[in-house]
Amino acid sequence: MKIIIDGMGGDNAPEAICEGAVLAARGIDHEIVLVGDEETLRKCVSKYQGRRPIDNISFVNAGESITNDDAPAMAIRRKKDSSIVIGMNMLKNGEGDVFISAGSTGALLAGGLLIVGRIKGIDRPAICSIYPILGGMASMLCDAGANSECKPRNLVEFALMSSIYMENVLGRENPSVALVNIGEEKGKGNSLTKEAYDLLMNSDLNFKGNIEARDVPKGKADVIVTDGFTGNIILKLTEGMAWNIFKTIKNKFTDGLHARVGSLFLVDKLMELKKEFDYAEYGGAPILGINKPVVKMHGSSGAKGVKSTIMKAIDFVEEDVINVIRESIQVVRGIND
Amino acid sequence: MKIIIDGMGGDNAPEAICEGAVLAARGIDHEIVLVGDEETLRKCVSKYQGRRPIDNISFVNAGESITNDDAPAMAIRRKKDSSIVIGMNMLKNGEGDVFISAGSTGALLAGGLLIVGRIKGIDRPAICSIYPILGGMASMLCDAGANSECKPRNLVEFALMSSIYMENVLGRENPSVALVNIGEEKGKGNSLTKEAYDLLMNSDLNFKGNIEARDVPKGKADVIVTDGFTGNIILKLTEGMAWNIFKTIKNKFTDGLHARVGSLFLVDKLMELKKEFDYAEYGGAPILGINKPVVKMHGSSGAKGVKSTIMKAIDFVEEDVINVIRESIQVVRGIND
Repeated sequence: MKIIIDGMGGDNAPEAICEGAVLAARGIDHEIVLVGDEETLRKCVSKYQGRRPIDNISFVNAGESITNDDAPAMAIRRKKDSSIVIGMNMLKNGEGDVFISAGSTGALLAGGLLIVGRIKGIDRPAICSIYPILGGMASMLCDAGANSECKPRNLVEFALMSSIYMENVLGRENPSVALVNIGEEKGKGNSLTKEAYDLLMNSDLNFKGNIEARDVPKGKADVIVTDGFTGNIILKLTEGMAWNIFKTIKNKFTDGLHARVGSLFLVDKLMELKKEFDYAEYGGAPILGINKPVVKMHGSSGAKGVKSTIMKAIDFVEEDVINVIRESIQVVRGIND
Repeated sequence: MKIIIDGMGGDNAPEAICEGAVLAARGIDHEIVLVGDEETLRKCVSKYQGRRPIDNISFVNAGESITNDDAPAMAIRRKKDSSIVIGMNMLKNGEGDVFISAGSTGALLAGGLLIVGRIKGIDRPAICSIYPILGGMASMLCDAGANSECKPRNLVEFALMSSIYMENVLGRENPSVALVNIGEEKGKGNSLTKEAYDLLMNSDLNFKGNIEARDVPKGKADVIVTDGFTGNIILKLTEGMAWNIFKTIKNKFTDGLHARVGSLFLVDKLMELKKEFDYAEYGGAPILGINKPVVKMHGSSGAKGVKSTIMKAIDFVEEDVINVIRESIQVVRGIND
């Protein structure tokens, strides 16, 4: 297997990307291809490999980068020499099996659509993000931000694709699906959730009904399905809340007097907990609905996050998730049409 | 002033309502009217007033109650003898200055619309909830769940009404307004937020632009404006996250070994913090856009929450918020028409 990695994307590139690639490469037989400014990447990898050279990392040069300020579709069309466009083209042409990037989400989506292409029968690809559950098994939140406006059928496709991923990559048997809504009862919500509820109920998915936002952090379903606007709100608010609470507690427990009462020990515990919420540690978010495996890493991923993303991406490829989605959607569409 | 309170609404009624009314009544000269099963309420109040009788609480009998299972509009039309319908009618007829209830949000909205009536020029009334900020001043989140589908002009009205409330009741000078969106830059989001952005930018409000969900808990604006679907998601996810994190930390710090290390002291601190997040303590959520002051209390409000809601409701009436809204919207509509 060949794992293509965007060496230039994300807040901590290229350092964290190279370090993570080195960490991962030591434990696997697969080849890792780093795409980006070759000289920079070579130096960076050699720094992290130290005295134990690695022979399963190679490099492909890219002369430019796409930033978050670039208009995604335009950047994909014009920046032909960027790491994302080169990586996506390699993926499309079979010069690699999966593409991983911590770069612009919009550019990855646009590249997925314009270069790699949609799976036939899927109307809208989605970002399906692992949603960390404190003290429990993570859920998948889909769509986490690709489609700010959705039709009811899109939500059913998100649920189908996420269920396949959760079953095949995370080993959840018959994954449960819940629809984010403003009430648990059928008939609640806006026109999108009302119609999506009926479609999901009539599907072959293990649909458990509506879930209120307060229950999302409790891990009540394997797959949490929603439109990309709401999904993005949920993901970012979760992040903001965790950050805010941990910061406040840390401040409260380490100021003057209280610092004495064993607080430092407790702050350590707290940081452990905070880590459970760290998306960067969760192996990235697959973009599902396109013809090849593409994984978006959190922009702030550190080396460990990069490594775990690479390890999960291997399962994503080995379990042939894309083909399972392709076949499942054909069955669904065949029945529906 | 006469404060009408639904004695039968909420998870802790009538106990918490009566206890809260007693607590509030002792500190004010205004009259509190409890609506509900008179015998029950009289007994309950007499239990909490103990040996110091209170002369500023009176009772109005209501033979039935509206529950969360009732279809709101139908319940308002049919349950004429319910505490909500009686309370709303008293408010409409000038037999009281504000109506407070911890009962069904839907019924309060329906009652507000059908009995009390909309303010002319306001398209859709909204629930404007106080959003607690850890270690900072609370924001107002509007709409927090009344309108699951909104037009851009609705969001401008929510922002206007909330700004007036924040300025007059919470004393925020020239309150800042931010629009919940999936990116900070202009042009981000769905068609609703894109159009609302332009309308807000062209209004006289102190509009600061988009706010991402991760920044909502940081208290970056006095007024956080959004559609009722998203607002409900934000409110409930915030509640769920706080609950979940506090519970996990408490468990982690009180199990076996760790309990020794001064943890009990720290758990106390933690519970203090948790209280900062307790909506029930925040004086309820005004329903803005109707012709009289109506305040929705959290269903799980305790006696202290009931008391603080009563105290805030007094400011709501004294600062004449409804009239300020009425006059402001006439100016806005006059200019726009």
